[in-house]
Amino acid sequence: MVDDQLKWNELERRTVFDARIFSVTNCLCLSPEGERGSFTVIETNDWVVVVPVLDDGDAFFMVRQWRHGSREMSIEFPGGIIETCESPLEGAARELREETGCVAGKITKLGVMSPNPAIMSNRVHFFLAEDISVAGDLQPDKDEFITAERISADEVTRGVGSPPYIHALTATALCFYMRLKQQKV
Amino acid sequence: MVDDQLKWNELERRTVFDARIFSVTNCLCLSPEGERGSFTVIETNDWVVVVPVLDDGDAFFMVRQWRHGSREMSIEFPGGIIETCESPLEGAARELREETGCVAGKITKLGVMSPNPAIMSNRVHFFLAEDISVAGDLQPDKDEFITAERISADEVTRGVGSPPYIHALTATALCFYMRLKQQKV
Repeated sequence: MVDDQLKWNELERRTVFDARIFSVTNCLCLSPEGERGSFTVIETNDWVVVVPVLDDGDAFFMVRQWRHGSREMSIEFPGGIIETCESPLEGAARELREETGCVAGKITKLGVMSPNPAIMSNRVHFFLAEDISVAGDLQPDKDEFITAERISADEVTRGVGSPPYIHALTATALCFYMRLKQQKV
Repeated sequence: MVDDQLKWNELERRTVFDARIFSVTNCLCLSPEGERGSFTVIETNDWVVVVPVLDDGDAFFMVRQWRHGSREMSIEFPGGIIETCESPLEGAARELREETGCVAGKITKLGVMSPNPAIMSNRVHFFLAEDISVAGDLQPDKDEFITAERISADEVTRGVGSPPYIHALTATALCFYMRLKQQKV
């Protein structure tokens, strides 16, 4: 079995840094050939990304905000950190409500991925939100300044890979959506 | 202009943790309404992801490896960290050669994204590699145990979102590839 020739085994893991939103661990591992290696892993909660479709799939509800990591404006699908007390589906509905003011009649799972399996421990859960209706004002967190807007699916598809469509996980979500559309043809 | 009502300004940035492959900074920023906020950012080199197409686009060359972040096997497009001395295009050609043993007659840019604009400073550069030929054995890094294999585009497209197709940036790259195919139809 090829996987057995590639698999490492973890011997020890210790936290070396703790931030508010993630921690960093050093993992001592044993290689498939029995050699020791040390790897740095960012440990954090799972995330959720929601694709809210409008107009029978011709448009999306997107969120515009300043991003402190990339230090630029970003237009992206709603999403965020899943709270410890909630399921991925509950997190999807909550982020949709907070960041776009909308509720969805139907939310379905698109897939689960690792944002970066090389250095991050967590997963991202992707959902499709349909039968969208506006429920009220946005409910941003204290330090969130965001707007929500309807953008055509064509514009988002053409735009990914250039500012302001810079968020890789928005393109990951779009990949799931494009696959779904292909299956329906 | 709506962006001016969303944009934060950085007042101060200091490194609070330094790992081998990334560092962590605390950024003190001024909100659009003049309030102070502190944000944690992971600073690291840019990355590259390469989509090596075979059989006129019916298949890809993919890399199978154990991933220490997600602690599972992953099948993904070749890619990695761009060295300080090289361009994104040079990094793409090097990672392709090291991880698949192949060289490409033609490498074209697909797009640039932020792997996570919320908490990461770096960018990921995506490339399409065509006219693929095998140049020799794989050249993995000392602590890399990898295999390369031809996998049909259909299998990868169906598979993303489930193990072993867990790498979000592989689906981001696939999004670019699907867009390219759509444009050619």
